[in-house]
Amino acid sequence: MKPSASEPLLADTLRPDFSRGVQDLLPAIAQDINTQQVLMMAWMNSEAFNETIATGFATYYSRSRGKLWRKGEESGHRQRVQAIRVDCDADTILLLVEQTGAACHEGYASCFFREYRQGRLEVIDTRIADPNAIYSSKSKH
Amino acid sequence: MKPSASEPLLADTLRPDFSRGVQDLLPAIAQDINTQQVLMMAWMNSEAFNETIATGFATYYSRSRGKLWRKGEESGHRQRVQAIRVDCDADTILLLVEQTGAACHEGYASCFFREYRQGRLEVIDTRIADPNAIYSSKSKH
Repeated sequence: MKPSASEPLLADTLRPDFSRGVQDLLPAIAQDINTQQVLMMAWMNSEAFNETIATGFATYYSRSRGKLWRKGEESGHRQRVQAIRVDCDADTILLLVEQTGAACHEGYASCFFREYRQGRLEVIDTRIADPNAIYSSKSKH
Repeated sequence: MKPSASEPLLADTLRPDFSRGVQDLLPAIAQDINTQQVLMMAWMNSEAFNETIATGFATYYSRSRGKLWRKGEESGHRQRVQAIRVDCDADTILLLVEQTGAACHEGYASCFFREYRQGRLEVIDTRIADPNAIYSSKSKH
């Protein structure tokens, strides 16, 4: 449904406000729609947001590579996007996704596999994939 | 348990790596440990992280105010931290919290109360608090 003429057309009621980001990048959180687990956080620019909507699969912007990052493009561990939510300031994005395989390049379901306990980070999860087997190349994601 | 002499003491096995942040700030995601709802995303520096651990309540760094932000200090809507997780790159923090009241200053349980649907953002949640009643002052948080 397109907004009608009587409804406000403020930019932040239509899209995230990428101008609020650092270098036009906003944090995008991926949450598993089935397990509710927070899987990862990455960055999106307007182009990544558009491609996510157009394809139905999570696309981020890789700051290290300086280009769009189609999550799972190499590993096959894609994220089918079921819902896109935006926070009150329209500067953080929450994706509810169906995750194929491990979200983390380390082979864990979630990138948040370490917990701070008594002054150090401890691994609290078990791998669901062999990180060496995920990628045919040396590419991280 | 303190790490033993035989264990590696890499910086990123002990704490988040704040040097990887923009101006030493890392994204910190708060998730409700009971409902599993993603509540909000804010920023932490090393000092905010330390205070969160010391007090057991989420403390962020407010970029707009340029100082520590003890979440719920004015509204009473505090976040008791039950677990702190860190991602594979040690540059994003996930807090599992017990949230008192609404996490969002708009009176919603979560700041992610709008969903992108057919080209616009629609409110998909209902308020659990009157935003005008949350704060006695004009302060946002």
